Amino acid sequence: MQRQKQGRPPGRYNRGGKKDTVMLFFKVKTAEEVLEIIGGFQPAGEEALSLAQSFGRVLSRDVLSPEDLPGFQRSTVDGYAIMAKDSFGANESLPALLEVVGEVAMGEIPSISVRKGQAVKISTGGMLPAGADGVVMLEYSQELDDKTVELSRAISPQDNVIQPDDDLRKGSLVLRKGGRVRPQDIGVMAGLGFKEVWVYKRPKVAVISTGDEVIPADQKPSPGQVRDINTHTLSAFCIQEGAEPEIIGLCRDKFGDLRGMVEKGLRRADTVWISGGSSVGTRDLTLKVIESFDGSEVLVHGISISPGKPTIIARVGAQGIFGLPGHTASAMVVAEVFLAPFLRKISGEGDFSRREEEVVRARLSRNIESASGRDDYIRVKLIRKDREWVAEPIFGKSGLISTLVDADGLLRVDRSTEGLYQDQLVDVMVFRSSRGVVH
Amino acid sequence: MQRQKQGRPPGRYNRGGKKDTVMLFFKVKTAEEVLEIIGGFQPAGEEALSLAQSFGRVLSRDVLSPEDLPGFQRSTVDGYAIMAKDSFGANESLPALLEVVGEVAMGEIPSISVRKGQAVKISTGGMLPAGADGVVMLEYSQELDDKTVELSRAISPQDNVIQPDDDLRKGSLVLRKGGRVRPQDIGVMAGLGFKEVWVYKRPKVAVISTGDEVIPADQKPSPGQVRDINTHTLSAFCIQEGAEPEIIGLCRDKFGDLRGMVEKGLRRADTVWISGGSSVGTRDLTLKVIESFDGSEVLVHGISISPGKPTIIARVGAQGIFGLPGHTASAMVVAEVFLAPFLRKISGEGDFSRREEEVVRARLSRNIESASGRDDYIRVKLIRKDREWVAEPIFGKSGLISTLVDADGLLRVDRSTEGLYQDQLVDVMVFRSSRGVVH
Repeated sequence: MQRQKQGRPPGRYNRGGKKDTVMLFFKVKTAEEVLEIIGGFQPAGEEALSLAQSFGRVLSRDVLSPEDLPGFQRSTVDGYAIMAKDSFGANESLPALLEVVGEVAMGEIPSISVRKGQAVKISTGGMLPAGADGVVMLEYSQELDDKTVELSRAISPQDNVIQPDDDLRKGSLVLRKGGRVRPQDIGVMAGLGFKEVWVYKRPKVAVISTGDEVIPADQKPSPGQVRDINTHTLSAFCIQEGAEPEIIGLCRDKFGDLRGMVEKGLRRADTVWISGGSSVGTRDLTLKVIESFDGSEVLVHGISISPGKPTIIARVGAQGIFGLPGHTASAMVVAEVFLAPFLRKISGEGDFSRREEEVVRARLSRNIESASGRDDYIRVKLIRKDREWVAEPIFGKSGLISTLVDADGLLRVDRSTEGLYQDQLVDVMVFRSSRGVVH
Repeated sequence: MQRQKQGRPPGRYNRGGKKDTVMLFFKVKTAEEVLEIIGGFQPAGEEALSLAQSFGRVLSRDVLSPEDLPGFQRSTVDGYAIMAKDSFGANESLPALLEVVGEVAMGEIPSISVRKGQAVKISTGGMLPAGADGVVMLEYSQELDDKTVELSRAISPQDNVIQPDDDLRKGSLVLRKGGRVRPQDIGVMAGLGFKEVWVYKRPKVAVISTGDEVIPADQKPSPGQVRDINTHTLSAFCIQEGAEPEIIGLCRDKFGDLRGMVEKGLRRADTVWISGGSSVGTRDLTLKVIESFDGSEVLVHGISISPGKPTIIARVGAQGIFGLPGHTASAMVVAEVFLAPFLRKISGEGDFSRREEEVVRARLSRNIESASGRDDYIRVKLIRKDREWVAEPIFGKSGLISTLVDADGLLRVDRSTEGLYQDQLVDVMVFRSSRGVVH
């Protein structure tokens, strides 16, 4: 508590924070340093949603069980509810003979109870009748007549029975804050009677494409012009990562135009992504625009990765601004490596930086040389061969989007190595294959 | 063509196909046999969507490039466009001296051309002026005055230049039918000026939960009753896999009720999923209901897996009907192992059965015994330890949903083995962590 008075906690970016760094000199940062900086951003807030709406969102509070589940003694099989001791010693050659006194109707409190020497027919999920303490499976029974059943297997008390709090005990932790809500999580919350769920707000991303040569994708370019690719790629990427894109538009390389669009983006969204503003001239423009906002701070100016080196990360108050390379293939590397963790972080995910689950182990098809001092991200195709994956590097001139379309994922060549060898086992960061938006 | 006259091709289920199998005896099928049967189902049709809407959908036609991309000679760097031969022999101690005759404005056809001994300033993405055949990077240049530049590096013709069809040549295959549209695929189609895209229709799934003991999740259960979990779990699962759930509702265990709901499901959706109808009595009910439809055929009645053995797969015409276990944990195993491939197949994915990309290699924390003759699917937790994953089996009585919530994925113990050993490396099918629906 003392700490708050001393200003913003280190590495935490609060709204209204004042500009406290003079931009004089920026050292290129490593990927690890950048991820640490990304860890300083915070979710925008929480909201209560209906159970169905909460699917795929991140829990902003722990979910505790409001009651015991299932709440009553339940049979896990079809069979006969009995007093277990009546079956002791029973086997195929010496079965136990019990009197059938009725059947449990599903969904109802049994009207009959079980006494010594008696059995009650029960289905999977049925409520155990009073007196019974176990269930013998149908497979080990034989009805001799309406009133008599032969049991060829002994059971112990509680066999084939779920206790009232076996699944979940009242007050116990069911789901942890910071996790994404999966189908089974929806299921358990439905089973516990939750009608609404507290989740973090879905991040909104303002997307701006810059470049005097860029025209809207639905127009016909003249020689020298190209259609806008980045707006569409980055918007789809946002949806894939659970964020909502807010397309601000195409921007000429002019200070006033860009400042106006960034201002609009900051007003409408939680973060602003500017692509294209990273060649020498426009990179300076992006920096100047960022610095013109009160409470702005440039956090990263250059990252020791390739492609993607000229990336800019800044904040205006608590909002992150990203200056991305203009080449789509480079922008997508930055998106996979940094924007995905950033979105996870501001979505409230606990484990925002981990991507280990989305890698595929593959055998490298050829040697790759790499300049030391930077992490290289190589586009690779994954080919199934015998029982393993083969990673085949795709090379091509910088700025070709076709290489990205041909690729299944990215292979990182760490800056501490000078390359990778043919037949070496490598971890490939697989591009997600999102199912898009189901309306 | 001849073939069509002989009736439906083997393994393909066409609408209006007649019931041609008498249900006398059903052998339990292996997982591989079931996947082959699933391969016989077909997508419901195709539709043309806008570029943005096509994200996450499956292409129903190959996408060919309608034009060359980028369509003109483009610089890939900031620098000077020159005739390459003017730089031959240039180095730091003996730089080439060239006359700067202008600058290429971005997005425009250069008004100036380059002659021998001349250079034109150019930015990344700029159009090469006539006469120039290469670009020297800014890093290797020094402006002596407004009109003169010194170049300290030789280039070859075409260095740092993309040719008009380097990225994509007119008529070439850009994206293959059967692939999911990813962000970069959206990007390349935007770059080529596509306004709409042909994709397969999104599958619609009718979801029915049965059981006399099951009540709507928003109601308070009496003893003996449980809230409906499966409707919510399976609906979210559909969304996760890119299908649209159509909730038909809760159904009593009565022939007429279930038949009415299945009929409604067949009318409203492409496939019908009934959960809960697989304990002895209700399993027969599900079968009877399926057989009461014209053109029905039971394809699978029991699978050699655990849990999930009593699963039913049938068709009515071309529509698949699934009878799933009532226990959510068992239903989810069937969903992961068979319903996900089924949805991929009727979504039009080429590689519908492959799940190799979604596994994580982990070290098993303890021995697992397994009955041979069936594939066991064990729920496991993944724990990061040092630089690898440890898979920790979660055991619990059948029918506990909490075990599913605690799990990160499933481990298959193949029917050909009798178990797995501690410290063995295993492949865990990781549960997806979908981002849900972004509106």
